[in-house]
Amino acid sequence: MRRKIAILGATGSVGTSTLDLVERNPERFEVVAVTAATNSEALADIARRTGAALAVVSDEARLPDLAERLAGSGCRAAAGTDALIEAAAGEAELVIAAIVGCAGLRPVMAAVEAGRTVALANKEALVTAGALMTEAATRSGATLLPVDSEHNAIFQCLACGRKEDVAKIVLTASGGPFRTASAAAMREATPAEAVAHPNWSMGAKISVDSATMMNKGLELIEAHYLFGLPADRIDILIHPQSVVHSLVEFVDGSVLAQLGSPDMRIPIAHALAWPERMATPAQRMDLASIARLDFEAPDLQRFPALRLARQALEAGGPAPIVLNAANEVAVASFLAGRIGFADIPAIVERALDESVFTAPTSIAEVLEVDRMTRVQVESAMQAACA
Amino acid sequence: MRRKIAILGATGSVGTSTLDLVERNPERFEVVAVTAATNSEALADIARRTGAALAVVSDEARLPDLAERLAGSGCRAAAGTDALIEAAAGEAELVIAAIVGCAGLRPVMAAVEAGRTVALANKEALVTAGALMTEAATRSGATLLPVDSEHNAIFQCLACGRKEDVAKIVLTASGGPFRTASAAAMREATPAEAVAHPNWSMGAKISVDSATMMNKGLELIEAHYLFGLPADRIDILIHPQSVVHSLVEFVDGSVLAQLGSPDMRIPIAHALAWPERMATPAQRMDLASIARLDFEAPDLQRFPALRLARQALEAGGPAPIVLNAANEVAVASFLAGRIGFADIPAIVERALDESVFTAPTSIAEVLEVDRMTRVQVESAMQAACA
Repeated sequence: MRRKIAILGATGSVGTSTLDLVERNPERFEVVAVTAATNSEALADIARRTGAALAVVSDEARLPDLAERLAGSGCRAAAGTDALIEAAAGEAELVIAAIVGCAGLRPVMAAVEAGRTVALANKEALVTAGALMTEAATRSGATLLPVDSEHNAIFQCLACGRKEDVAKIVLTASGGPFRTASAAAMREATPAEAVAHPNWSMGAKISVDSATMMNKGLELIEAHYLFGLPADRIDILIHPQSVVHSLVEFVDGSVLAQLGSPDMRIPIAHALAWPERMATPAQRMDLASIARLDFEAPDLQRFPALRLARQALEAGGPAPIVLNAANEVAVASFLAGRIGFADIPAIVERALDESVFTAPTSIAEVLEVDRMTRVQVESAMQAACA
Repeated sequence: MRRKIAILGATGSVGTSTLDLVERNPERFEVVAVTAATNSEALADIARRTGAALAVVSDEARLPDLAERLAGSGCRAAAGTDALIEAAAGEAELVIAAIVGCAGLRPVMAAVEAGRTVALANKEALVTAGALMTEAATRSGATLLPVDSEHNAIFQCLACGRKEDVAKIVLTASGGPFRTASAAAMREATPAEAVAHPNWSMGAKISVDSATMMNKGLELIEAHYLFGLPADRIDILIHPQSVVHSLVEFVDGSVLAQLGSPDMRIPIAHALAWPERMATPAQRMDLASIARLDFEAPDLQRFPALRLARQALEAGGPAPIVLNAANEVAVASFLAGRIGFADIPAIVERALDESVFTAPTSIAEVLEVDRMTRVQVESAMQAACA
């Protein structure tokens, strides 16, 4: 019996890796729905290859092109948010939630409310709507399986004990390109320097988040909602080689860690096959060749994003949404050459300080806090630059 | 409801650590039986402290002293093998098998045949009688919980997947005091140099086994019987800091590792509380302070014991018994200054080559192979020195 899956964000990095694994295991999976933001050509190709019954492009302007490309394939073409929700909460048992950004919130929530197993690669789902998502999962019986390497590692390690026996979880962080840089050098950092991530090949925005370590701050927030631990029981540990993906300490002093090559197909395969496992073509990890693993405490002075994220998590309510939205606007401005590297956390901190939002009670309210924060941060930056 | 436990080998290192944990958790455990080889004074003290109903001293000559010390305590004093078996297979649900050497075989087998949960700290049980023990456990429904740090680590990591999804297991080894020594220096090694173990405080015999790496060879054999994997799916990895206690690789490329401070109370607590966990006073591991972990492949040229153990495991039947017995005689001779360090593996290899035993079908036959090997190795050494 093949497992029915929907791949939301099928043309992106996680979507592509998911398809690679799914197509290597045709006996295990039946792709019933695929979605993309705008790339109707690639989406139509994926839909034909996988035999999906539904292909959804978010951008409604791309629907005619998608429909034309799928003519005669037996795959229905659709567009827009309602169609994304149909793909997410339709017949799929397992939903790969790999839409980038807040555009993923409504479809992910639909899958969660429908009680599906949701493989979460959309950071915003937990960062901006963590309480709403996990409450909905509890009500519906949905299972949330984290796909990014750190949370997937923790999820794996948690199988070694009962939740009440967990002392703390430890998120590892590469430290990014500025791990050993001076504070002075970081103030002068260019976008080109900031996107040069040492271990993983990633997009520009997330690479800058790695350079500021806001990436790890956002993961701290995700970990809180995924695993139900307070912020003071979630540590961050610098580990430049990114071989140990994260760790869990139990009350007896045992520490469980998950390690592996830096290949997203490993955590994706874990989510696809869970509670079983499936073979992947990922390179086997060889510790004798790697030879050395290093660890150090994070420097909260040079990486204020870590402090800001912890502060936003402890404040709760709208604060993580503000943190995330302000950071996105600031990073885009940095990449556009409008502000300096050190301005990124400063802008985030100011947005948090000036936030007057109340705790959102729906995805619509989450999206409204997100939108308004972006407007406010953008106008504050323009005022500052004027 | 307190769990009834028997501690076989209560006055030794594992026994003492077990008692430390048990006495910190009086609400969890009821000690019903305790045993010791010869130290009736310490045993009587333990029996009185724990309120055990039965105290057994192996050495029958020590029974009068034990009985006198326990007079009026309500604890029955006994001696000899039958009494050890009674302690092992009596009313305890959980048996801590921490008797050193082949003296532990009969009591451990009695506990296994009685279907008890057996926390195994007696290496010989699996090295010399692995097939018999695991077959008996399958028949009786007994659970074997490994207590030594490497196998306990693997046992913990195996909880993260199904047995059929395990690709391989990796036993870590400190490499011992001669990890970086030249072959020439190793040939001249003195007992004092050989017992200087870098990470763990251990007895002289096991310290020499660490120096030859026969210790890891014996653990390879134990791992095979405990976890049911062939020798070619059990790797050995040098890790000088002894922080990562062992690892399990799954088919998806995920590697799970268990780490912790070098405190035997951690794996003992795991076995005591399993499938729950219990708090221990062991120092928390701090990777940022440890800072660096190293890994390297073992050198089979300088450490022929690894090759010999793998060879004995693959030969099966009586070979692991011969390996273990010949090694014990050789190590004792080395510690007594009668032979050189390099003679230890040479003597073991010769004993394996000359072995004409058949596969044992009972503990009595295991003990007979063990005894005869010792006699043969001893007489061969005397002939060589004459």
